[in-house]
Amino acid sequence: MRIKQNKLKSHPKNRRVDGVGKVTGKAVFAADQMPGHLLYGAVKRAHVPHAKVLHIRTDEARKCKGVHAVLTANDIPGAHGFGIIVPHQRVLADDKVRFYGDGLALVAAETPEQAQFAAEQINVELEELPAVFSPEEALVSDAPLVHENSNLLFEHTVHHGEGETPDTAINLLHTYRTQHIEHSYLEPEAVVAWPAEHGGVVIKGSVQNLFSTRRSVAAVLDFPLAKVQIIQATLGGSFGGKDEVMTLLSCRAALLALATNRPVKMVNSREESFIESYKRHPYKLSYRLGADKDGYLKSIQADFIADGGAYASTSQFVTWRSAVQAAGPYRVPWVRARVRAAFTNNNYTGAMRGFGSPQVNFAIESLMDELAEETQLSPLEIRRRNAYRDGDTTPTGQKLPGKVTLIEALENVARESDFEKKWAQYRANKKSPVKRGIGLACSYRGVSLGAEGTDAAGTLVAIQTDGSVIVASGITDMGQGSQTALSVIVAEEFAISLSHIKFLNTDTDRVPDSGPTVASRGTIMGGNAAYDACITLKNRLFHLAAQLYGGNVDDFHLKDSALWRGNKRVIDFGELADKAFAHAVPLMAVGWFKAPKTTWHEEHGQGTAYFAFVYGANAAEVEVDTETGQVRVLDVWACHEVGKIVSYPQACGQVYGGVVMGQGYGLFEEYHQEQGIPQLRNFDEYTLATALDAPQIHLSFLEHPDSLSLIGAKSLGEPATEICAPAIVNAIFNATGRRIRELPASLERVLLGKQLRRKNQRTSLTKEQP
Amino acid sequence: MRIKQNKLKSHPKNRRVDGVGKVTGKAVFAADQMPGHLLYGAVKRAHVPHAKVLHIRTDEARKCKGVHAVLTANDIPGAHGFGIIVPHQRVLADDKVRFYGDGLALVAAETPEQAQFAAEQINVELEELPAVFSPEEALVSDAPLVHENSNLLFEHTVHHGEGETPDTAINLLHTYRTQHIEHSYLEPEAVVAWPAEHGGVVIKGSVQNLFSTRRSVAAVLDFPLAKVQIIQATLGGSFGGKDEVMTLLSCRAALLALATNRPVKMVNSREESFIESYKRHPYKLSYRLGADKDGYLKSIQADFIADGGAYASTSQFVTWRSAVQAAGPYRVPWVRARVRAAFTNNNYTGAMRGFGSPQVNFAIESLMDELAEETQLSPLEIRRRNAYRDGDTTPTGQKLPGKVTLIEALENVARESDFEKKWAQYRANKKSPVKRGIGLACSYRGVSLGAEGTDAAGTLVAIQTDGSVIVASGITDMGQGSQTALSVIVAEEFAISLSHIKFLNTDTDRVPDSGPTVASRGTIMGGNAAYDACITLKNRLFHLAAQLYGGNVDDFHLKDSALWRGNKRVIDFGELADKAFAHAVPLMAVGWFKAPKTTWHEEHGQGTAYFAFVYGANAAEVEVDTETGQVRVLDVWACHEVGKIVSYPQACGQVYGGVVMGQGYGLFEEYHQEQGIPQLRNFDEYTLATALDAPQIHLSFLEHPDSLSLIGAKSLGEPATEICAPAIVNAIFNATGRRIRELPASLERVLLGKQLRRKNQRTSLTKEQP
Repeated sequence: MRIKQNKLKSHPKNRRVDGVGKVTGKAVFAADQMPGHLLYGAVKRAHVPHAKVLHIRTDEARKCKGVHAVLTANDIPGAHGFGIIVPHQRVLADDKVRFYGDGLALVAAETPEQAQFAAEQINVELEELPAVFSPEEALVSDAPLVHENSNLLFEHTVHHGEGETPDTAINLLHTYRTQHIEHSYLEPEAVVAWPAEHGGVVIKGSVQNLFSTRRSVAAVLDFPLAKVQIIQATLGGSFGGKDEVMTLLSCRAALLALATNRPVKMVNSREESFIESYKRHPYKLSYRLGADKDGYLKSIQADFIADGGAYASTSQFVTWRSAVQAAGPYRVPWVRARVRAAFTNNNYTGAMRGFGSPQVNFAIESLMDELAEETQLSPLEIRRRNAYRDGDTTPTGQKLPGKVTLIEALENVARESDFEKKWAQYRANKKSPVKRGIGLACSYRGVSLGAEGTDAAGTLVAIQTDGSVIVASGITDMGQGSQTALSVIVAEEFAISLSHIKFLNTDTDRVPDSGPTVASRGTIMGGNAAYDACITLKNRLFHLAAQLYGGNVDDFHLKDSALWRGNKRVIDFGELADKAFAHAVPLMAVGWFKAPKTTWHEEHGQGTAYFAFVYGANAAEVEVDTETGQVRVLDVWACHEVGKIVSYPQACGQVYGGVVMGQGYGLFEEYHQEQGIPQLRNFDEYTLATALDAPQIHLSFLEHPDSLSLIGAKSLGEPATEICAPAIVNAIFNATGRRIRELPASLERVLLGKQLRRKNQRTSLTKEQP
Repeated sequence: MRIKQNKLKSHPKNRRVDGVGKVTGKAVFAADQMPGHLLYGAVKRAHVPHAKVLHIRTDEARKCKGVHAVLTANDIPGAHGFGIIVPHQRVLADDKVRFYGDGLALVAAETPEQAQFAAEQINVELEELPAVFSPEEALVSDAPLVHENSNLLFEHTVHHGEGETPDTAINLLHTYRTQHIEHSYLEPEAVVAWPAEHGGVVIKGSVQNLFSTRRSVAAVLDFPLAKVQIIQATLGGSFGGKDEVMTLLSCRAALLALATNRPVKMVNSREESFIESYKRHPYKLSYRLGADKDGYLKSIQADFIADGGAYASTSQFVTWRSAVQAAGPYRVPWVRARVRAAFTNNNYTGAMRGFGSPQVNFAIESLMDELAEETQLSPLEIRRRNAYRDGDTTPTGQKLPGKVTLIEALENVARESDFEKKWAQYRANKKSPVKRGIGLACSYRGVSLGAEGTDAAGTLVAIQTDGSVIVASGITDMGQGSQTALSVIVAEEFAISLSHIKFLNTDTDRVPDSGPTVASRGTIMGGNAAYDACITLKNRLFHLAAQLYGGNVDDFHLKDSALWRGNKRVIDFGELADKAFAHAVPLMAVGWFKAPKTTWHEEHGQGTAYFAFVYGANAAEVEVDTETGQVRVLDVWACHEVGKIVSYPQACGQVYGGVVMGQGYGLFEEYHQEQGIPQLRNFDEYTLATALDAPQIHLSFLEHPDSLSLIGAKSLGEPATEICAPAIVNAIFNATGRRIRELPASLERVLLGKQLRRKNQRTSLTKEQP
């Protein structure tokens, strides 16, 4: 085990391969595209949360200046619905409107203003229906139905340990709540679609999961997959958010492009993005925790209910991860978890960085601190006593594979932050109205998709005849830096400079379907596939070298942009490439990586859920103004075990961004709806943590190359953001004695939160603090 | 041996995969591109054939309205010169102007008119130099030098058989001449270049040989290859002609794009295309033929000189093919061939459909008819006596591989055209001023590049999860239909409909360097690579099938869009693809085909020049108005042995086009220059054979799948055009007794040609007919 403490790696100056283009304005984002003969699309939206569609009159709109097409659901040649799991989200509402952002009709016109004006002339007759806005209400038996059948979207259970709830000395019963969260990508959704030269359609846009979008567009247009090309424009952020909403935009733009035989651009304004895009699920998380008097966990009963909103999206998978990880990274002999998602008439909810774990981590890490308080142990000590160690088994019956580095991560942030000392000192401080506090949180996280679905990816590597290299992957870079990570892997394998590598944006016509770019799987899946291609190509080069220079294939290696035989430099890499071409050696290979097998038995929630896990811990130090409720996060210590760091600057970037995003989740952000109507529609009201709010971030990484990944790397994107909020909330408690069980920890909640610190006073079983 | 006589193959209705897009106007040719913020480029050209560049003043041009950049050679960051073999052709003339079309400066402006106007304001001071306009003059010792050193561009010799010229009963000494030929592609050259997002440049244009163009652009810009992306726009014809001239246009547009940071479009007008593009080489071909009294060839001495024009281009390779094939498809025990190319101040000459064989075929097939006349044998009989048969050895010492089908092809066209009877009858006709004639010509042709260079190609095949398939190749479709041919190969291998295949335009970022698309190598190289990829993917599918359904991999096959096990249909191909994806089977493969080894020893011109040969014969029937000189070609019988036909309609298309192009070569076309100044600059004066001139074409194919090609196919593109002209010229002789030894057989030449038919009268050794 090697601890990386702010130390740079072999390529300390790895710049993002897309960095210069982005800072100089040369990067072409989706909305920047300006093909000739362009038309602009606009959407007529419902702006009611639940209604029957009676009639849509488009005559007036068709007559408007500059209008080339007005389409309704009747004009869709193929499937009306799409969706990753349940294809029931409508491209254009046909029977019903199910949430405020649903679209009813489309316009293509010569200017955006003409399109917008014409859309406003579309006359829509709706019959409003009784609606439901909370998942609890939605599951009541006579609740209005969002879809044809039950509002129960999905239910997972995990059943670990025999018998009834064990009797325990300590029992805590608490409920936590989290909020709707906007992805807040810098770039709103945008796409241009145009008819393909030889039939079919081409779509270039800010699409995160190109193959999933392609499947839907092909179904909606009734085309074979090969006739739909989705090209990734350079993406200005996604965080899981440019999946279904981009599918929707892509389908709509494609319909207009084929109807008009022209390129059609559709760009969501920020307001449209707010009301149309899906959000992170709000959860209600009810826990019953049993522990012995020394704080050792004996049982956890967890009951979560998530607001799925109007459409299924990925709720089934998001809630599955919550179920698997419901008991946190702790040894618990008896676990019962039930996680339900319900349809409501709110914005639908789906994938967002963390994917069902930020909610659980907030709850379980708060609960662990409540147990610490209850047992009068420190938050560090309570975690030490319960944290997973090598060889432990999770509630799904899976023996944790490889090295379990949770304790190392925890001890690391505790030591670096001087946690124990500060915690005791801040807890004792009663005087000043501005109080300091320090909090801890830790997590484990299953890597990649797990038993959710097929987990494989492809990356193409092509050595050019001068030794420069072109790489393309089925994995999308949406700003997270996977192009850089994969380029570094290729550069290291070929021992060449990063500047000689070009990484291409993803294009469904040109790379194999590699599943979605989600679940922090970019580096581990795409990277291992890149490595696989490099190994294939290196073998070919070494085989040629053995022919040309004698010796065996194994005698050769690459170093310093050259081929070496033992200690002897044989030939420059570029010249070797040229020679290989002259000998007709194929210099392009499709690398492929298939994740190790996972299993899942839904009935009891048992199985090898993930083939690998990562571990991490955060400590957060805050200053709370108890007179205003304002919380300043001063320092965050973040330690993550990631298998192996591929590129140090990019790994740091993930943690910097993750911490600040976690801070926003903990303190500021909430996408608020009233009766299904979005109340905040731009960043003037929806408050993000900005650079000015950002704490001093103290990074450290643990490296323990995982044997299951060829390149040793595991995941970092999501782990980096999922434990900051509970660390902050725990720090607020340390500072103020106020336990906040609902996110965000807003001024009001901090100011008005109940004083909960007790001295040797057990919480009774019924004393739930909502 | 199977004879295909106007019979359709298994897929009789294979439509061109790019056909609908082209006839409906949806195909996007290079000049159709309209990116946003586009600038237009213009060139200031020399318009003198040979001059020293003294000074170029751009001040006035820079001040013109709408101008964004004015560039001269001084602004080129990398290499000033480019070229496939010798990189001495200047992107912009720096030291000297070497032919009329050389460029001196570039302008980018907001409209094409502004760019053109500004180009005209560039003040160029040139010092005209003595020039040379014929290759014979160029090789005289005190001739003005086009480049620094000798005007001898290249010289090949072939030396076969020992000793001095054998004594023979019949000796013929004749010289033939061919003309400069314009490629006459429908679409003039066009390109758009723009700065790449993350450094480098992207060029999309009517480029035939993308990788060769990329090499030059990268050198000129001083970029690694990976930073230059060349994308093939749908091409409107090339015939070998969109190589260097497109490299030139690409370099120029890229320079302007990088200078202005904007997309820059450059489109040659037809006039610009005429003066700037390279041509087919004019040859002077001097033969001394020795035969015995029965017409059996004993010796051939051939001395060719080709006009290479101002730059080397591919002259070295073009003349090499002429040298290898100098003695035609005939058994000759003693051969001496010398082929030289010389620099002149004419338009440079390079690759054009036929690539050094149309000239040789015209000469040798005329000469064979002269020998027939001399021996009073029929043209068929003289060929029967001398034609290659199985196991024969060529003058380069190569034993002909596989089946030699020359006699079959000859007999086929003779039988179908009723040659012997008509030939005797027309020859006897002395009365009418409008005379009929029939002529024969045949050829053999080395397949693909031969010992010219590395011969390998890659094709990517990707099965999509619904069973549709995407194919991309390093081989370019420039109108010849290779996308259709390769799609048919893939469709047949997967037993799916052609409509489920999408073929992508070539893109250097996305496919392996597959060498140039020349030498009729598209189908044999790209097709075999496609086949290779299909076999890889089928193996993977069958392996999965064996896992899923039991049995062995060998038990499975594909038929009727489904997987079969013996006689049992197991699963639809699309469902199989979906299952394979679910099992993480990689569904994309890079197919690769490496041509069998060839060898070449330059000194004596010996070696295994080509790994395979094709054979063909044409008979042409003409009507000659002896009072006007007008020749109408009534019928052409064309028989080609092609290995195996991949797609019958496309094979027919090659022959239809080839015959008519050969007709133009024989009768009409000549790119005429006077003192290096082009005299004809558009199709109003440069006369092509049109649809109205086209004869009735009677096709037949011989199929004899070659064991050296996995798919059985060899070549057809060039063979189809290279023997029509001599068949026509021989038919004119049959009709009129006038032997035309210089192309084209224009009205004047037909009218004024010497009466050469003799009765039992030997030609003396000195009686050369120029």
